[in-house]
Amino acid sequence: MNGTLYIYNSLSRCKQPFKPLNAPHVGMYVCGPTVYGDAHLGHARPAITFDLVFRYLKHLGYKVRYVRNITDVGHLEHDADEGEDKIAKKARLENLEPMEVAQYYTNRYHAAMDKLNVLRPSIEPHASGHIIEQIAMVQKILDHGYAYVENGSVYFDIEKYNKEHPYGILSGRNFEEMLNTTRELSGQEEKHNPVDFALWKKAEPKHIMRWPSPWSDGFPGWHMECSAMGCKYLGETFDIHGGGMDLMFPHHESEIAQSVAANGKQPVTYWMHNNMITIGGQKMGKSLGNFITLDEFFNGTALQPHDHPLLHPAGPLPQHVGLQQRSPASRREGLQSPDGSREGCQGSESYRRCCFT
Amino acid sequence: MNGTLYIYNSLSRCKQPFKPLNAPHVGMYVCGPTVYGDAHLGHARPAITFDLVFRYLKHLGYKVRYVRNITDVGHLEHDADEGEDKIAKKARLENLEPMEVAQYYTNRYHAAMDKLNVLRPSIEPHASGHIIEQIAMVQKILDHGYAYVENGSVYFDIEKYNKEHPYGILSGRNFEEMLNTTRELSGQEEKHNPVDFALWKKAEPKHIMRWPSPWSDGFPGWHMECSAMGCKYLGETFDIHGGGMDLMFPHHESEIAQSVAANGKQPVTYWMHNNMITIGGQKMGKSLGNFITLDEFFNGTALQPHDHPLLHPAGPLPQHVGLQQRSPASRREGLQSPDGSREGCQGSESYRRCCFT
Repeated sequence: MNGTLYIYNSLSRCKQPFKPLNAPHVGMYVCGPTVYGDAHLGHARPAITFDLVFRYLKHLGYKVRYVRNITDVGHLEHDADEGEDKIAKKARLENLEPMEVAQYYTNRYHAAMDKLNVLRPSIEPHASGHIIEQIAMVQKILDHGYAYVENGSVYFDIEKYNKEHPYGILSGRNFEEMLNTTRELSGQEEKHNPVDFALWKKAEPKHIMRWPSPWSDGFPGWHMECSAMGCKYLGETFDIHGGGMDLMFPHHESEIAQSVAANGKQPVTYWMHNNMITIGGQKMGKSLGNFITLDEFFNGTALQPHDHPLLHPAGPLPQHVGLQQRSPASRREGLQSPDGSREGCQGSESYRRCCFT
Repeated sequence: MNGTLYIYNSLSRCKQPFKPLNAPHVGMYVCGPTVYGDAHLGHARPAITFDLVFRYLKHLGYKVRYVRNITDVGHLEHDADEGEDKIAKKARLENLEPMEVAQYYTNRYHAAMDKLNVLRPSIEPHASGHIIEQIAMVQKILDHGYAYVENGSVYFDIEKYNKEHPYGILSGRNFEEMLNTTRELSGQEEKHNPVDFALWKKAEPKHIMRWPSPWSDGFPGWHMECSAMGCKYLGETFDIHGGGMDLMFPHHESEIAQSVAANGKQPVTYWMHNNMITIGGQKMGKSLGNFITLDEFFNGTALQPHDHPLLHPAGPLPQHVGLQQRSPASRREGLQSPDGSREGCQGSESYRRCCFT
């Protein structure tokens, strides 16, 4: 290959020369959208970030298989293990079949990414299209003793896992700290330990999206899809896993635990995380309601600050978008964010803690 | 609804007023592409035909759920039950993962349909994403006695089915005629009767695309996906099923048999078929090699007749495209095709036989 690429690896907390497992082939997995609403600026950032990585790796001469998933099932409200499926909820409100909702927003996501000149990934697998692979992986984790079945649902046993493999190596958290900070939420009675997470959930009678499994008619836990689809298309260990830093915990941390429990090896050699787009110092997020859609971004009329509740009347949007980004240096030094807030987004704070301490 | 729509129903061979099962809702399923090559003019025709139906139904005030599938597994060479999977073959030749091939051509299909101003369907399910649903339907057919297992594969028992339900009601064929005309092909030894078709195929060791099932690690038969996905998203009986008339037999005929065997009722009230785009009197088809891709169609430089082996130097392409279409009347009267051939395409001949005799 021409030239050396250095990657800041979130797992090692170091900048490392990139050495693929099987050059000239490179496997890269990036967490894609949950398709229950229009893409906003927060979705554009990982797409553009890893599009640059994808293009640059190809420029260096690598043959890249880039997998970015579509989450169309299993992502529950508040990223939790209880509550309504985000897509099913939208479908209920709009009186549609959940897959109509997923298809509609998948199409709009593609159109928005095309406008951003982001290349399509090599494979774009759907979570609902890989239930068999997810069930097989849950079964392996059960067979290896790192999960348990309660009332038709399957949960990952973090305490058991943590005795043999450190849980928290990516985000820098430790098990005792998590135990002390995890809230007891209602509906979590089935878990042996409140920090455990769902691998498979038994569906309530009203739940539409359900499949048969050895444990119940149900649906996979949110973290399972990426482990199963990454493994299917890129192998048990692959080169790069990317995503927003808000996904580092619990999503990516749980992916590591699932893969180690199932396959006995680390799934990824280089973990890469992009920072967040912030609004008023807080991560821009669909569920937080503080987002600017890409349609609003592309559409000139909606870009007037006076027309958008999230924008200050100080200047046009492009200036604001630039202003929201803070460098690690400015965060390290506690500099005031140019958007006026002193707080970094939660994701940034967690990242700072694990990268710079 | 405003106004009455009349549909030529291939099943009744009559023009009928359209009465949806559950107005104002309409369910419509159309067979989509097998994504192993670029879309050509032959693919444009059903897409445009049923886009018109979709738009017109909406114009009349119906709430239409339009399902058009992506075939990314199970479609074997020569539309047969033996031979290589079309996508796996392309992947082998290009040294890619089959889903990379499927993704690449799915993206290009979407881009071509967008250029034709064809609306996206409400749901675009992938065959590989509905293996569980297909296995469940095969099991129902087995449970009802209309299929048998041989060496890990499952075949539909047409003779048994035909004793209780006429096989061939859509295409106008009858069982005895089929028995007399069906060739004994190599590799068909597992079938009790050469006219039987595969519901599930045991995968050879080299076959990449495979899933566990009660009968073998394997993959679904080609006809199964449309029955399972139509039923999942539109119900056991829905309003309209569309596709090219080349799919009438054996694909749609087998869909009817599968659904009746599994659910005990006709799956569709109105079957609609578009005619073929012909070249020299023969159906334009990817596997026949006589196609003009939509890229060539859109790209001015490739439209010069002198540059394309399939085009006569008599005039520009748009004129030719128009000329290939023959009305039922001209076919009925055996008029010479304006492209110089006396023969209609095979699909047309089969259609004429069942519609006008």
